Amino acid sequence: MKLDVFLTPGELVNGGELAGRAAVAIDVLRATSTMVEALANGASWVIPTGEVEEARLLVQRLGPGDVLLCGERGSRRVDGFDLGNSPLEFVRDRVAGQGLVMTTTNGTTALLAAAGSRSKPPRRTVVGSLLNLEAVAQSLVEADDGISILCAGKERRFAVEDTVAAGLLVKRVEALSGGRPELNDAAAAAETLAERHADSLEEMLAGSAAGRQLIEVGHGDDLAFCGQLDRHPVVPELVDGRVKLS
Amino acid sequence: MKLDVFLTPGELVNGGELAGRAAVAIDVLRATSTMVEALANGASWVIPTGEVEEARLLVQRLGPGDVLLCGERGSRRVDGFDLGNSPLEFVRDRVAGQGLVMTTTNGTTALLAAAGSRSKPPRRTVVGSLLNLEAVAQSLVEADDGISILCAGKERRFAVEDTVAAGLLVKRVEALSGGRPELNDAAAAAETLAERHADSLEEMLAGSAAGRQLIEVGHGDDLAFCGQLDRHPVVPELVDGRVKLS
Repeated sequence: MKLDVFLTPGELVNGGELAGRAAVAIDVLRATSTMVEALANGASWVIPTGEVEEARLLVQRLGPGDVLLCGERGSRRVDGFDLGNSPLEFVRDRVAGQGLVMTTTNGTTALLAAAGSRSKPPRRTVVGSLLNLEAVAQSLVEADDGISILCAGKERRFAVEDTVAAGLLVKRVEALSGGRPELNDAAAAAETLAERHADSLEEMLAGSAAGRQLIEVGHGDDLAFCGQLDRHPVVPELVDGRVKLS
Repeated sequence: MKLDVFLTPGELVNGGELAGRAAVAIDVLRATSTMVEALANGASWVIPTGEVEEARLLVQRLGPGDVLLCGERGSRRVDGFDLGNSPLEFVRDRVAGQGLVMTTTNGTTALLAAAGSRSKPPRRTVVGSLLNLEAVAQSLVEADDGISILCAGKERRFAVEDTVAAGLLVKRVEALSGGRPELNDAAAAAETLAERHADSLEEMLAGSAAGRQLIEVGHGDDLAFCGQLDRHPVVPELVDGRVKLS
C-alpha cells in the first residue's frame, strides 16, 4: 500500500496524488483540531469555505438561525463572525445542534484541496488532528487503495506541527496494519520528525511559527489544547461539501 | 540573523523571502552537484535555463564552438545534447574552458527561482551541494542580512536529499558563526533530518525518490559521487544569468 505525505497543498501537482485514495487533511493549529472538537461537542456539520465573503454569503443563504459563522484571519476572529478558530470556543453549549460555516487562513483551504478535483476525487476525505489521531488511523487501516495525508502548512509553506502529526499518523497506521506501507520521501521524513518530537509535543507547538503567532495574539492556551492526543474517538469526513462524523 | 529553508520553489510565495539575503540553491541529485563538479574541473561558466528549446536556441545564438548543451529529462540526457546531468560526465578533458548551457527538471528551475525577482533580488545567489558544503558555509557566515536556502525538491514536491543537505549547511553555519541564527520551521526540521542521516548519506540517497529513479535508469554511480562531502572548496555564484566561481 502506498502512503504519501504532502507537506503543503502546493505539493498536490496534478490531483492524481489523491485519486481513489483515502485523503486526510491536517491543520493542527488550528482548523482541523477545531472541527474535531466542534463535531465531538455536537455540532451538526461544518462547511469549509475559502474566503471570508463566501462564508458570509453562505450563512445568509442558509439562514443564520441554526448556522454559526466561524473563522480567523491573522489568527484573530473575523469581524462580525460568531466564533473564531479557537477550539476552546466550540463548547457543547455553543455548538450542539448548530451548523458551522468556517473559513481559516490555511486549514479550510487544505481541506478543500484534499477533496480533490471532480475528475480525480479521493475515495474519502477525512479530517485529522492530534485530538483524533487513533480513530483516524483505525479508519485508514483498511485503505488498500492508498493513503494521502495533506498537511495544511502555514501560508503555503512547511509547518512542523502538521508534519509531526502526519508522521505520528503514519506510525500508527504502520503499527495497526502490521505491514510496511510504501512511503514517499515526505512520509519517511515526517516519521523522523514525529520520533524527534513525540515526547515534547507542547514544546514543539510552542516553538513552531504558528504556535508563536498564536501566543502573540493571546491564544496561547490553544497550544496545550490542540496538543492533546486522542481526546475524541471521532472520524469527521467531508462529503458533498460538508464535514460530518462518519 | 535569520536563516530560512524553503523545501520547494513553491514555498517562495512573494519573493520577499530572498530580498537582500544570501540565497543558496541546492539540488543534490544532481544539477547543483554537477555544476560544482563542472566548474571545479575548469568549465568557464554555466547558464541555467528552464526549457529544452530555450537551451537549444541559446547555444545556437552563443555559437556552439565553445559551448556545450547539457541536461536531462526523466534523468536521461536529452536527445541531441552534448552531455546529460551526471557529474561523472563533466570531467576536465571534456569541460575545461567550455561554457555550459544546462537545463534540468528541478535544479535549474530552482536556481533561477533563487535568483529572485527584479524588484526583490537577493544580495547574492550561491550554488550549494554536498560536494562544496563547507566552502558555501564559510562564504555565508558573514551574511548578516540573512540566509535563505532553497531546496530544489522533485517535481514541485519535497525531496529528502536536498533537505538533508540544507540541514547540514544550517549546522555548519551555526558552528562557524558561533551564534544561534533564528530558524524557520523548515530549517529546524532540516537539522533534525540531517542529524538522522548524517552518518548514512549514501543509504539516504539510495532510499530517496530521486535516487531510486537514478538507479532505475542506470545512473546509480551518481549517488556515491553526489554524496561526497567537501570534495571541492568552491563557491559558484549566479551573476547576470551565469554561474561562475567567485
